[in-house]
Amino acid sequence: MTSPLLVVGSVAFDTVRTPFGSGEEVLGGSATYFSMAASFFTSVHLVAAVGEDFKDSDAAPLRERGVDLAGLTRIPGRTFRWEGEYGYDLNTAKTLRTELGVFATFRPKLAEPLRESAFVFLANIDPEIQTEVLDQVTKPRFVACDTMNFWIEGKLEALRKTLSRVDALLINDAEARQLAGEPNLVRAAAAIRRMGPSTVVVKRGEYGAIMFSEEGVFSVPAYPLESVLDPTGAGDSFAGGFMGHLARSGRLTVEGFRQAVVLGSVMASLNVEDFSLRRLARTREDEIRARYRDFQDLTGFAELA
Amino acid sequence: MTSPLLVVGSVAFDTVRTPFGSGEEVLGGSATYFSMAASFFTSVHLVAAVGEDFKDSDAAPLRERGVDLAGLTRIPGRTFRWEGEYGYDLNTAKTLRTELGVFATFRPKLAEPLRESAFVFLANIDPEIQTEVLDQVTKPRFVACDTMNFWIEGKLEALRKTLSRVDALLINDAEARQLAGEPNLVRAAAAIRRMGPSTVVVKRGEYGAIMFSEEGVFSVPAYPLESVLDPTGAGDSFAGGFMGHLARSGRLTVEGFRQAVVLGSVMASLNVEDFSLRRLARTREDEIRARYRDFQDLTGFAELA
Repeated sequence: MTSPLLVVGSVAFDTVRTPFGSGEEVLGGSATYFSMAASFFTSVHLVAAVGEDFKDSDAAPLRERGVDLAGLTRIPGRTFRWEGEYGYDLNTAKTLRTELGVFATFRPKLAEPLRESAFVFLANIDPEIQTEVLDQVTKPRFVACDTMNFWIEGKLEALRKTLSRVDALLINDAEARQLAGEPNLVRAAAAIRRMGPSTVVVKRGEYGAIMFSEEGVFSVPAYPLESVLDPTGAGDSFAGGFMGHLARSGRLTVEGFRQAVVLGSVMASLNVEDFSLRRLARTREDEIRARYRDFQDLTGFAELA
Repeated sequence: MTSPLLVVGSVAFDTVRTPFGSGEEVLGGSATYFSMAASFFTSVHLVAAVGEDFKDSDAAPLRERGVDLAGLTRIPGRTFRWEGEYGYDLNTAKTLRTELGVFATFRPKLAEPLRESAFVFLANIDPEIQTEVLDQVTKPRFVACDTMNFWIEGKLEALRKTLSRVDALLINDAEARQLAGEPNLVRAAAAIRRMGPSTVVVKRGEYGAIMFSEEGVFSVPAYPLESVLDPTGAGDSFAGGFMGHLARSGRLTVEGFRQAVVLGSVMASLNVEDFSLRRLARTREDEIRARYRDFQDLTGFAELA
């Protein structure tokens, strides 16, 4: 049974420089990338705030993918802005500037139907906002969240509260170790699982992803790409594929979770092939299935005789 | 059909410090780790030099695993020494001291029967010595080599000569990019394949391994370990499992190579669980098979409905 998906997170203007080009004030944000990727799997309801400088036309890529923007509120102030750059290895963004803008005052208020969402993703955003959203959801079936070093360092208590109420955490490699205060990833994941989420999915950029849960460990490499143009939004695209598959299939089983990790990897690998949302905007369903099969080819091996 | 395996490389005394302990002048070296790991798959003939300070009893772990030491020559001078340390992330060794010792003058001379070796591994060692060994082998069926930044920087021409004559290169992630002068790994592997080896296996430490060949790309994650005591020799243990499987099975097929990469990962994951050769010395065959199955569990996922 397919369920719709609720996501709360940021909608932003990104300024990104990579060795292969740059984008100036292009549409970005965690909820944006997530919604674009998830829209291939189920209907997506986006909750976020933008400022008075955000034009209706700025949301065109989301609208074209059929994302429900009723929860995208325009409030006084400027839209969230992020400026960053990547070196040749493209693995880690250097943040040059963050301007919270309207997210400094945003207090999300869910419309009545969204309160009954079964599948909820709390994208990377102030953990206090994440908790406020959870407070309004009446009967969630599966809740996942993301976070980043900024909140681990600045709002650990609020983040801990969010973590105690989610089923899954999707997080970067370095940030998982930082959150747990533990350099060994297996032990870090175990420590995070004790904070609440029964499933921890660690995103490792060009090294793939690894999922820790009650059922053990599952690991998938990244899709080997000859040309990565812009890694921005890879983690959020991953989350969109992951949550999208779970909401579409409704199967919270070992197999379902593993497929979700692979589909997350598929969406991330597509996203980084072009700047901003361009690659996701032109993705076709059959490309997703083809790349899923590529992942089977990439990782399969036979039993020993 | 099982073939024996010839390896030329270093036998050394290592001094290693990790956050979890240290070892002072313990048996190490690329040929040593390789031979220990490969000995579980086929008979191994080791060719290397040691100095006058090397006692017969120092080679006991190799002898106990049945490694043929007829090609281990004692020559005037001191045994090769390496001193290094690892930080908490355990991914990269910091080399504190390298003392070439007898390897400054060693000129390997293969005994008659070894010249007919079908499977040959040129472990990390001066590429001129690697080539001298190849010159003496009359009808190799499959030759692989390893190398490191030291030779890429200091003896690139000699290394190029070796590469033009091998079937496979096993190399670290950073060193693959350095050798190719290309930050993108897919393109780096393609560039290296143009230098000679039709198969390039990139070892990525805790991120696993990835193989590039005519048949495409194969990637396997590392075994998730809660406790890594000493990463020294992980790459050489990987090579021992990889080459050992190929020499034992004799099947140079897509499936055989993929199994070889997994068995390399198995041997590396065992090796790092204790200092020096301790873990390999106490490994049992059934542990290798069990860990191979663990890799199947770790990486398997179902088709999409």
